[in-house]
Amino acid sequence: MMQEDRYELRFGGAGGQGIILAAVIFAEAVGIHEGFHVCQSQSYGPEARGGRSRAEIVISSEPIDYPRVIGMDLFLAMNQAALDAYFADCKPRGILLADATFVSQVPTSRALLLPFTTIARQQLGDALAANMAALGAVGVVCGRVRLASLEKAIARRVPAKFKELNIRALHAGAAAARQLDLAALPPFIDSEEEKEV
Amino acid sequence: MMQEDRYELRFGGAGGQGIILAAVIFAEAVGIHEGFHVCQSQSYGPEARGGRSRAEIVISSEPIDYPRVIGMDLFLAMNQAALDAYFADCKPRGILLADATFVSQVPTSRALLLPFTTIARQQLGDALAANMAALGAVGVVCGRVRLASLEKAIARRVPAKFKELNIRALHAGAAAARQLDLAALPPFIDSEEEKEV
Repeated sequence: MMQEDRYELRFGGAGGQGIILAAVIFAEAVGIHEGFHVCQSQSYGPEARGGRSRAEIVISSEPIDYPRVIGMDLFLAMNQAALDAYFADCKPRGILLADATFVSQVPTSRALLLPFTTIARQQLGDALAANMAALGAVGVVCGRVRLASLEKAIARRVPAKFKELNIRALHAGAAAARQLDLAALPPFIDSEEEKEV
Repeated sequence: MMQEDRYELRFGGAGGQGIILAAVIFAEAVGIHEGFHVCQSQSYGPEARGGRSRAEIVISSEPIDYPRVIGMDLFLAMNQAALDAYFADCKPRGILLADATFVSQVPTSRALLLPFTTIARQQLGDALAANMAALGAVGVVCGRVRLASLEKAIARRVPAKFKELNIRALHAGAAAARQLDLAALPPFIDSEEEKEV
């Protein structure tokens, strides 16, 4: 396995924000429709009973030996508590993508803030679609999956009645992410490394 | 970690049989409501595009080092193709639980066959609830989760409209499993080990 080929994501949020569903959909889109090897996992322990939710996805063009996140390339944080709890494993070059509706303090300059819940509420009339708006943004930022693949995976996982709503949310989130200038991010999270650049 | 404390399950079936949803619900019931450490995962690779679906759950009273199945204690097979493809990692003392609606050939004498899809169709009027019937049986056979915990996890994961149907399916599967005589199973799968007993 080429180390640089492995791409690791974590999604974190409150219970009820649809983190695990978003992770399963993302994994199926990348694994079934984009031809990557993908491991998707969630762990539960004493800390899970605090109401936080965390899901991980590891992507590689080669079979995956270790299915958990070692260092995140992309961390999606849907609220401040999940950001604070799960940020530690972010790579220096990792990107934080956060729901600005619920996140105000970011521990890195490599942060992209988009108000997913506000977008879902205002553009789709349903704050619960914020997870799909976030998924659209994750797709744009990670660059490893087509929106059409995410749409197919949503159609498999979401009841027919909610399919159109969720796909519209996906596109709204992707559109918001396309307005961001990824090239304007500083190259490293770590301040010491930044000084060396 | 005490080795004997680790308990590993795999669920396998066709795409659309609701294997991953069942695994997520099972993991949340055991991890959130029973106080175990739980890792739940699914992998996608070239073989996933054949339409088979596989999900794994590892349970322990201690933190889990390796989140994937090493040797299954319980394998739920919802169709023959998944049984044939994923049986290899079963422990000698492992139990195969299979949907008799779609499975006819079992590679072990430690097999329990229940017609989950027929139960779901006949008792609930919806063959798609077979995954929840199977989940009820898994709960009874594994002995590590209360039906009430599975009910709570179902209520979190299933749209309100389908909650009652799914919980009724859970109970139908559990009732069917309680008719089985686990003590009547031979002690080992492996025929050589059986001879030694």
